[in-house]
Amino acid sequence: MDGRTGLPVVGMVGGGQLARMTHQAAVALGQSLRVLAESADDSAALVAADVRLGSHLDLAALREFADGCDAVTFDHEHVPGELIRALEKDGFKVYPPADALIFAQDKRRMRERLGALGAPMPGWRPSPSDISEMSEEYGWPVVAKAARGGYDGRGVWMLSSMADVAALDGKDIILEQRVPLRRELAALVARSPFGQVAAYPVVETVQRDGICVEVIAPAPGLPEERALEAQQLAIDLATALGVVGLLAVELFETDEGLVVNELAMRPHNSGHWTIEGARTSQFEQHLRAVLDYPMGETTLTAPVVVMANVLGGPAGGISIDERLHHLFAEDPGARVHLYGKQVRPGRKIGHVTVLGDDLSSVRARAARAARWLQEGE
Amino acid sequence: MDGRTGLPVVGMVGGGQLARMTHQAAVALGQSLRVLAESADDSAALVAADVRLGSHLDLAALREFADGCDAVTFDHEHVPGELIRALEKDGFKVYPPADALIFAQDKRRMRERLGALGAPMPGWRPSPSDISEMSEEYGWPVVAKAARGGYDGRGVWMLSSMADVAALDGKDIILEQRVPLRRELAALVARSPFGQVAAYPVVETVQRDGICVEVIAPAPGLPEERALEAQQLAIDLATALGVVGLLAVELFETDEGLVVNELAMRPHNSGHWTIEGARTSQFEQHLRAVLDYPMGETTLTAPVVVMANVLGGPAGGISIDERLHHLFAEDPGARVHLYGKQVRPGRKIGHVTVLGDDLSSVRARAARAARWLQEGE
Repeated sequence: MDGRTGLPVVGMVGGGQLARMTHQAAVALGQSLRVLAESADDSAALVAADVRLGSHLDLAALREFADGCDAVTFDHEHVPGELIRALEKDGFKVYPPADALIFAQDKRRMRERLGALGAPMPGWRPSPSDISEMSEEYGWPVVAKAARGGYDGRGVWMLSSMADVAALDGKDIILEQRVPLRRELAALVARSPFGQVAAYPVVETVQRDGICVEVIAPAPGLPEERALEAQQLAIDLATALGVVGLLAVELFETDEGLVVNELAMRPHNSGHWTIEGARTSQFEQHLRAVLDYPMGETTLTAPVVVMANVLGGPAGGISIDERLHHLFAEDPGARVHLYGKQVRPGRKIGHVTVLGDDLSSVRARAARAARWLQEGE
Repeated sequence: MDGRTGLPVVGMVGGGQLARMTHQAAVALGQSLRVLAESADDSAALVAADVRLGSHLDLAALREFADGCDAVTFDHEHVPGELIRALEKDGFKVYPPADALIFAQDKRRMRERLGALGAPMPGWRPSPSDISEMSEEYGWPVVAKAARGGYDGRGVWMLSSMADVAALDGKDIILEQRVPLRRELAALVARSPFGQVAAYPVVETVQRDGICVEVIAPAPGLPEERALEAQQLAIDLATALGVVGLLAVELFETDEGLVVNELAMRPHNSGHWTIEGARTSQFEQHLRAVLDYPMGETTLTAPVVVMANVLGGPAGGISIDERLHHLFAEDPGARVHLYGKQVRPGRKIGHVTVLGDDLSSVRARAARAARWLQEGE
């Protein structure tokens, strides 16, 4: 508790854009997010007042950071469970708890647990040694995923033969069925320690090279019963796994129905549209959840909301500042979020959100805006 | 320009809630607002990364602050014109310029200039020695206003007799007709150095004891031609006065039409509703204006938007944190903004915004939410 304001202090481990946008939400609640950053140049460290520098792998740094926080939460999923457990033993409130976060950190544990819960999943096997069984049952290709640490398409391999399997020798991987999917969806919920859960409208996510490039809210043409099924699944998983804070359930929509692809337990790229597109942003919702405040309304603020990620484009061309001038001149309604990052090709440096009534024009505007910032033309 | 991000740096003189909310907007544009605060406890200083401590009356501090800024602007109107002119001579871009800001700083200069421009105004005289003339022409009471420094009802006196005038002896005041008003309105516009002007929908403002307590957007029942007249007046004034950044024109609506009450050249309390209620918030718009970016869309995001100020309530009762719990439980759609200030009776410590379709229910929700935070019941 901040003795001066009488309002709580939330600490977020990790200084990326998720912490940056969470700080913006914290400011409205009368707070100032405490950020544990690795570098003073981290996206959130550039804009937050209460920045501590240190490693998320250093228990002493984590303890010092947590001291005085009403709740500690995460910008990423890389803090080892044993360190979180040590903080929990110290009496700190750490959300999500280590026992929940493990299912976002370890895909093998996630698949085992979801299987036990009867959640719909692709076929899978826990080890590369199961490849014969997998290829017989589902045919080639087979998907291999790093059990830990994969992100934005990294840590995923498409295996077409036994030779591909041999090339992964020594990696800690699991095998998954390559699901014939219609599209990808995401169901985002927030859960408080009290057990209240709030669900956002289900969105469609569009990936390119394993990186999310576009999110459409609500998912176009999704029958209401399937949307409710996805929301119910996310609510049930959040409750069964003991999540506190946000849970993003990435889903494949197939001809046979929904299957769970991945879990994330933090503000998620598939929820950036909520800043302008939902009555309560995912960032405020995450803070409300970890502080055990009642959840905020999740209703849409427009019939169609589209978020497009801005990736770092090729070097050269006009400056990012000039690009912004042009974009603002061309589309005065586009909502821009830049993360203060240095541009590197393919790196997420910001996003753009467009709201409106007509799906195709809103999508086109969002894509054009992102392309402008990305390529300067 | 920030060498690392390639994005501009805006400096705001003053560390109040306007700077605090401007920082939130700056973060989305990839920036981090530089704040000149008097104390590390100032509202904006609690949440911004780039805070310099110093007085807005100290030219050396202002120069050091301005160095490296692409534009310098203000959270309040208390920086003396001669200091701003010194910065302008140094080559710094300071917005609004001293020659415009004077009309928000000095009511006598404002009335003289508006008179020369033919803007609609209450009857007025430049000096207390004109009291006989004023009382003969308009009758008692006569309004006396401090030429400089008045704020939130301070610096305004209702004179009922010659004895009241004598009691103001020595004060630098002007006299104004007490206008028989239907209600108060405000027209908010932003103007860039390039000369682009963007106008927000005209709002109704409700004052209590000289302090704004409620803002209703759009102003209920305002005929379109009168709304357009108010917007045109604000656009014309911004252009004629050479304003860069925001200009709030506070208006009285009378049986005879509109008259100008006050001018403000900064983000304004009558524009806080724009954070959620307009496509571009006044805070982002102010940044876009002072950076000469093209202006953003000003359209409403809901049919009715009501902002209610949260004033510090009586001491005692449940904590502000508990009040927030109750409010969130009671109204999950209320948007809360707290400024991180210590509670003192009557002090603006935050505001609440509610959006919806029905005027009376939206007003009731906003008033109830503000009362909850204010009084804890």
